[in-house]
Amino acid sequence: MTPRVAVAGASGYAGGEILRLLTSHPGTEIGAVTAHRSADRHLGDVQAQLPGLADRVLEETSARTLRGHDVVFLALPHGQSAPLARELEPDALVVDCGADFRLRDPADWKRFYGSEHAGTWPYGLPELPGQRAELRGASRIAVPGCYPTAVTLALFPAYAAGLVEPEAVVVAASGTSGAGPAPGQHLLGAEVMGSMTPYGVGGGHRHTPELTQNLSRVAGERVTVSFTPTLAPMPRGILATCSARLRPGAAAGACGDGGEEAVRAVFEAAYADEPFIRLLPPGRWPSTGAVLGSNTVQVQVAVDSEARRLICVSAIDNLTKGTAGGAVQSMNAALGLPEWLGLSTNGVAP
Amino acid sequence: MTPRVAVAGASGYAGGEILRLLTSHPGTEIGAVTAHRSADRHLGDVQAQLPGLADRVLEETSARTLRGHDVVFLALPHGQSAPLARELEPDALVVDCGADFRLRDPADWKRFYGSEHAGTWPYGLPELPGQRAELRGASRIAVPGCYPTAVTLALFPAYAAGLVEPEAVVVAASGTSGAGPAPGQHLLGAEVMGSMTPYGVGGGHRHTPELTQNLSRVAGERVTVSFTPTLAPMPRGILATCSARLRPGAAAGACGDGGEEAVRAVFEAAYADEPFIRLLPPGRWPSTGAVLGSNTVQVQVAVDSEARRLICVSAIDNLTKGTAGGAVQSMNAALGLPEWLGLSTNGVAP
Amino acid sequence: MTPRVAVAGASGYAGGEILRLLTSHPGTEIGAVTAHRSADRHLGDVQAQLPGLADRVLEETSARTLRGHDVVFLALPHGQSAPLARELEPDALVVDCGADFRLRDPADWKRFYGSEHAGTWPYGLPELPGQRAELRGASRIAVPGCYPTAVTLALFPAYAAGLVEPEAVVVAASGTSGAGPAPGQHLLGAEVMGSMTPYGVGGGHRHTPELTQNLSRVAGERVTVSFTPTLAPMPRGILATCSARLRPGAAAGACGDGGEEAVRAVFEAAYADEPFIRLLPPGRWPSTGAVLGSNTVQVQVAVDSEARRLICVSAIDNLTKGTAGGAVQSMNAALGLPEWLGLSTNGVAP
Amino acid sequence: MTPRVAVAGASGYAGGEILRLLTSHPGTEIGAVTAHRSADRHLGDVQAQLPGLADRVLEETSARTLRGHDVVFLALPHGQSAPLARELEPDALVVDCGADFRLRDPADWKRFYGSEHAGTWPYGLPELPGQRAELRGASRIAVPGCYPTAVTLALFPAYAAGLVEPEAVVVAASGTSGAGPAPGQHLLGAEVMGSMTPYGVGGGHRHTPELTQNLSRVAGERVTVSFTPTLAPMPRGILATCSARLRPGAAAGACGDGGEEAVRAVFEAAYADEPFIRLLPPGRWPSTGAVLGSNTVQVQVAVDSEARRLICVSAIDNLTKGTAGGAVQSMNAALGLPEWLGLSTNGVAP
Repeated sequence: MTPRVAVAGASGYAGGEILRLLTSHPGTEIGAVTAHRSADRHLGDVQAQLPGLADRVLEETSARTLRGHDVVFLALPHGQSAPLARELEPDALVVDCGADFRLRDPADWKRFYGSEHAGTWPYGLPELPGQRAELRGASRIAVPGCYPTAVTLALFPAYAAGLVEPEAVVVAASGTSGAGPAPGQHLLGAEVMGSMTPYGVGGGHRHTPELTQNLSRVAGERVTVSFTPTLAPMPRGILATCSARLRPGAAAGACGDGGEEAVRAVFEAAYADEPFIRLLPPGRWPSTGAVLGSNTVQVQVAVDSEARRLICVSAIDNLTKGTAGGAVQSMNAALGLPEWLGLSTNGVAP
Repeated sequence: MTPRVAVAGASGYAGGEILRLLTSHPGTEIGAVTAHRSADRHLGDVQAQLPGLADRVLEETSARTLRGHDVVFLALPHGQSAPLARELEPDALVVDCGADFRLRDPADWKRFYGSEHAGTWPYGLPELPGQRAELRGASRIAVPGCYPTAVTLALFPAYAAGLVEPEAVVVAASGTSGAGPAPGQHLLGAEVMGSMTPYGVGGGHRHTPELTQNLSRVAGERVTVSFTPTLAPMPRGILATCSARLRPGAAAGACGDGGEEAVRAVFEAAYADEPFIRLLPPGRWPSTGAVLGSNTVQVQVAVDSEARRLICVSAIDNLTKGTAGGAVQSMNAALGLPEWLGLSTNGVAP
Repeated sequence: MTPRVAVAGASGYAGGEILRLLTSHPGTEIGAVTAHRSADRHLGDVQAQLPGLADRVLEETSARTLRGHDVVFLALPHGQSAPLARELEPDALVVDCGADFRLRDPADWKRFYGSEHAGTWPYGLPELPGQRAELRGASRIAVPGCYPTAVTLALFPAYAAGLVEPEAVVVAASGTSGAGPAPGQHLLGAEVMGSMTPYGVGGGHRHTPELTQNLSRVAGERVTVSFTPTLAPMPRGILATCSARLRPGAAAGACGDGGEEAVRAVFEAAYADEPFIRLLPPGRWPSTGAVLGSNTVQVQVAVDSEARRLICVSAIDNLTKGTAGGAVQSMNAALGLPEWLGLSTNGVAP
Repeated sequence: MTPRVAVAGASGYAGGEILRLLTSHPGTEIGAVTAHRSADRHLGDVQAQLPGLADRVLEETSARTLRGHDVVFLALPHGQSAPLARELEPDALVVDCGADFRLRDPADWKRFYGSEHAGTWPYGLPELPGQRAELRGASRIAVPGCYPTAVTLALFPAYAAGLVEPEAVVVAASGTSGAGPAPGQHLLGAEVMGSMTPYGVGGGHRHTPELTQNLSRVAGERVTVSFTPTLAPMPRGILATCSARLRPGAAAGACGDGGEEAVRAVFEAAYADEPFIRLLPPGRWPSTGAVLGSNTVQVQVAVDSEARRLICVSAIDNLTKGTAGGAVQSMNAALGLPEWLGLSTNGVAP
């Protein structure tokens, strides 16, 4: 029987993207679409890009409207998923695009979000070693943040293979849709076009503990991450430039003849069976334009033998693989469907 | 049996978009992909957004490489389709995205392109009154230009119903992918970002005779079109603002009480069965962002009772509905498949 | 004695641009800078682009803070200038960047703004025939709207010379700074980048009566204007594409041999002594990028002999010549200073 | 007597920007403007943003056309300055915007440019400790690269004060004008808008040895720089995100109470007398939009106590402070003029 799927927060950017993907997903049926301030409006008024759903009426986001579905996507502001999820059926699959259930350490949550920790759900990043098994059959999934998706997938092979030291430096550029549709002057087109600016510098961004958690888990030791996000003048996309010092041993190999090939082999092996990660051929570099609207992660790596660092760069669409696509992929994994169902690897480019 | 499809000009923007659409088309199989300067390169080197086809090798564009397919898409510079098409099998379906076979009047061709007219093929705009029937079973199709697609679909109901006078004024903004991937300084990002500029002003753009041809055919009398294309700082999209003086009779109704509703009714009726044309609800206006990557045509109309003009605005993706999507839709029509196969009505937005 | 200048609305886009221009104006001294919601903040917090004024503290906008200056620029929301201006000294020069005093016909004001008409001030467009004399020594000036500046300067020579019929069609694209810094979802970078959309279609935009007023005044008869503004994905700039049917007499000349030259001569004569209007050489077209940050108006004209229309295209920076530059130029004219003082004709390009 | 200034390479982006600045420089007179492929064209045809110089005719770039000037700016492709400079008068001030004379180590030059080293000229970065004195009265100046300007000015106080370890990590985003006006498909607007992509990853970018040279000189020991440049979808601007591990001693202070204030005090002292460097108030971050067209360098610093790194971010306009503005500033320094003559600290924003 075709699973019936509800989308809470359907008036936002993540919610709209989930709906875009579901309309071409052959194995699901769209049920309730809900919102808060936009409740009672037609979906066509808030998501003009989805004409096929234009006549749907947004219902109020509540346990009442969301119950009775096989799958519930929550695309809500941080902190709103936890109380709502408690009221949903235990056997429904609840996929949370918010941060509420991503972190394992309650102290991390408290420090970065200020409230009490609600718990930890299976983490919706099937490509992370060991994670796919945890998702199959799960009834609760926490979708990763957009930056952690891009950064973790670029760096995990290096940490899994012990190539680099446990101090990563990440500078990532994000399209402005990452901030959602709530208006603010600094997000106006007039201010962002032609301009790049960092924010949350110095360890303050809320995705920092999630990055540390992911990389530490793979490395088997605590990895610190110096993370600087920047706002780029584009609607979508994340370009993550990640680096870490090569370990003396790895450096010896990697920096000498054939070293880059050895590093490359590590990444090829790590990504071998992944339908959505594409390690680019030598000489080509990821671009966010090439993955627009797709679930693809472009990755490329380089060894800087002078600075003795490994540089790993990845590009994703922050709303697709970084949020809604990751959510649908995780749903597929949980339901035992092919992970790529309803997802495209093709970007809309140029 | 699944038709085998070749794409000539697969290294260009139109060719790449055709391939993007075909990869999600359930009723076709991709055969030869050909190019000229990029022949022998991997498709992944020139169309990084299509990882699933990355290992395909581009063959030289020639009758030899294109023969033996059920469908051949030609996405070539103007003037190159005609000699090539002559050498292809008569019963293969040849869909030309170039201008060679769009115009009916050899004098128009001569004046705007300078060479001898190659002929006229069935025009790949199924939404044009009477055109759908002409496409069914056709073995040669001339896909409309991107501007003519946007303009014709916005204005034809007004001319079909005799609402306006035969002098249309069109100002259209196009994303810069419309100029193709051949480099020129005026198309560099540094020059186009933050800038708008017109070109081909005063009747010089090659799409002018096609506009005149389409609207005159619907109107049953010669319609002149004052057409000003402008280059807009966006990769894709056409926004066409079209207007014409209301006929005295039509104006009387349209400008009085209920007149706008009467005009609206004409457009609703004209678009009633069209899967890709969406007349927006009152108060909402087309935006190119909302149709990115989709085959949708957003249309809205307004009556200016002071200036006594009807204003019709449409938005399309110039590479999808304006080129590759129109081509695939026409192929579907010719092959007797549902027109929407392989095409999405959903835009990638925001 | 150097005039002391106050700027009300100094936290907005127009106010910030006025300050940018004044800091390089050798003949004025900046006095009070005022705002409403941002009162008591440092200017550096709201206008990061003006480091030289960063330590200035914004005062509350009021007659009290603005009195005692030789010149007062009002860059306030529509409707707020009139009550404030009444309380300022009669012999101070008050330059209003808002709409309050632009229109001559109280019925126009009532219809488009809904409130009572406050009066009409000398119109701050020195290039308009006869207007320069009216500005010299004036103590109250109404700066034109950004669209009317671009459109009027592109079309007035044609109407002054009787070349065209009194029905103009204008489609103009504006950068999103034209909407000011008040946040709205439709103005977010994520929504405007990559997208073009019209607004106020069908005669509803508030600049329509100002356009009609200007062109009618020059033509000596009522000119209707079909005006469609569009929002373009760029921070600044207006590209106005204006056209009108050539009068039979003018058409005879203009469309025959040498006709375009005759039209061109009319424009050359009209602009001959204007320091800020640049009629481009034949074959070159205005671009908003080329006038960024400058007070220049680029203009080009073409005759469409098929459609029998004259097309006039202009490009300005909406915040400079379209608002703040026009205001400073008018101040210069009123004070008897060279009009170009503090204003550059050079654009920041690419 | 007013110095007469020639600009070689006046058809390029750097050359055009030098001319824009010189037209508002009160202490110079523009002499020959030269180019190669555009020789004999009007400047108005290639630099439409400079109407005041539109009628100037570009002469061929050669010693013959450049001799006889007091100042010669060379804005030429790398490798072309050296042979030309040898033929110019020894007492003329030659300011080279190219790379030919920036590097001190011939081996660096050979490795990154492949040809023989031409020599080393005084380095045109007056803000670098000790450098201002070297420029006064100089007759040959090598203007820094755009990235080295942004990075060096952000990091030098930390190295001068011994705050950080000699391994810097830099990720910088540049507007596409940095690549100049020579067309390439990857620089087309259609490809760069909406897209970010790195290049020269792993130590391959030619600005890397210049970065190492500058920071090592200030630090008094060899500093390695892991440098990743990225291409951002904007015409102008560089945002440089630079970081290095805090030294144990510095870390102890910096990471405890009041540590960030201590670091900040170091930067305040280093920038105290610099007219163009603006250390932003706490809580505000550099943005390229705020410095558009200006010679300002916005800087902000943060201490990441978790990752034990100092993060320094700077924003400049790559064509102004990063090239042409730095060149004019250096000219002023050499001629004994106030450094700010002809240069604005105000950005054109929004």
